[in-house]
Amino acid sequence: MARRTGRRPGNPDTREAILSAARAAFADKGYDGASIRAIATGAGVDPALVHHYFGTKDKLFLATMQAPMDPLDVISAAAEGDRSEVGVRFVRLFLRIWDGPGGAAGVALLRSAVGTEWTTKLFREFVVTQILRRAVPKLGLDEAEGRLRVALAASQMVGVALARYVIKVEPMASAPAEAIVAAVGPSVQRYLMDDLPGVFDGCDQAPEPSTAGTA
Amino acid sequence: MARRTGRRPGNPDTREAILSAARAAFADKGYDGASIRAIATGAGVDPALVHHYFGTKDKLFLATMQAPMDPLDVISAAAEGDRSEVGVRFVRLFLRIWDGPGGAAGVALLRSAVGTEWTTKLFREFVVTQILRRAVPKLGLDEAEGRLRVALAASQMVGVALARYVIKVEPMASAPAEAIVAAVGPSVQRYLMDDLPGVFDGCDQAPEPSTAGTA
Repeated sequence: MARRTGRRPGNPDTREAILSAARAAFADKGYDGASIRAIATGAGVDPALVHHYFGTKDKLFLATMQAPMDPLDVISAAAEGDRSEVGVRFVRLFLRIWDGPGGAAGVALLRSAVGTEWTTKLFREFVVTQILRRAVPKLGLDEAEGRLRVALAASQMVGVALARYVIKVEPMASAPAEAIVAAVGPSVQRYLMDDLPGVFDGCDQAPEPSTAGTA
Repeated sequence: MARRTGRRPGNPDTREAILSAARAAFADKGYDGASIRAIATGAGVDPALVHHYFGTKDKLFLATMQAPMDPLDVISAAAEGDRSEVGVRFVRLFLRIWDGPGGAAGVALLRSAVGTEWTTKLFREFVVTQILRRAVPKLGLDEAEGRLRVALAASQMVGVALARYVIKVEPMASAPAEAIVAAVGPSVQRYLMDDLPGVFDGCDQAPEPSTAGTA
């Protein structure tokens, strides 16, 4: 019988222990405040094992959330090309994920997002660190306005996901994806790229605070 | 000691029994399929008592959902006045409810909307019968296009409610209401009133089916 090594990449118990410790750490301390070292200690494993199983802290967080995709992939793909079509590309890519095999995971993610205070907090960390923080520079948005712009665009896309895939309101649920793209794409485009008179006058223009220590 | 009559408008047990029977009936048979008579039978009371406690079937349904307001009031108020400002009025009235004492009930309604299959189904009935069905004629919308227009507008407003009041993503959570109105109002206006090229080409243009017998 082969001697077993300490490192067992496929061990589901170890993997689950890391995910469980990560979930608690991200919810307690926020994304920025949760260190890989502390997560490893919580799971009773070596920090190198956390990196070995999950790669980066971002990837670990996405695994914790059981996200159907890495938002960075969608943001990067939408950011490429003609800037006047960013909104349409965003909505098209978003619907492609939800209409595909990732849709069920998306529904589960949305359900958990509003399930409890604890899961809501995790989802807020997800939106801030995986969507807002990454989309602002990728889309070349103004630092002071960018987060609200992306939050507005995200609110419209999440609203569509809720109506179409969770509540399943007709005729939205069975409308062709391209009809939704034609309807919603220009709104997302406007939120991200157009002048928005009256929107930024009274808002907090401070840069995004760290999520560390928001427990 | 005064003789008690059979009709006790304030009896919380009777009220709760009716609400409980109504919840089950609306979820099982849909809004159209659930009769006041069957709800009364389920609660073991006379149908007249259901009317006495709750008034119309719409009012009973709203009580069942613990809705923070009657959507008809918002729709009627938004429909009055300059048609080019319908979207702005909708978003302003919507935020006023959520920023006010009704906000907590709104959060509870949204949480229950995605909680379970059962509560999701009730929420879908709520959207179809209390929002889509009433808004299309009130706003004078084309019968074939109206439901998708209102669903698009509702998806944007529910997305804002989710981001601002449930997930509490900054800077959306603490932005002044008028900043959100300036941002989102034009989108809602466009969904409801503007030409939407490419949106209605492939959609089902049939009139809304009854919700009866959708159990």
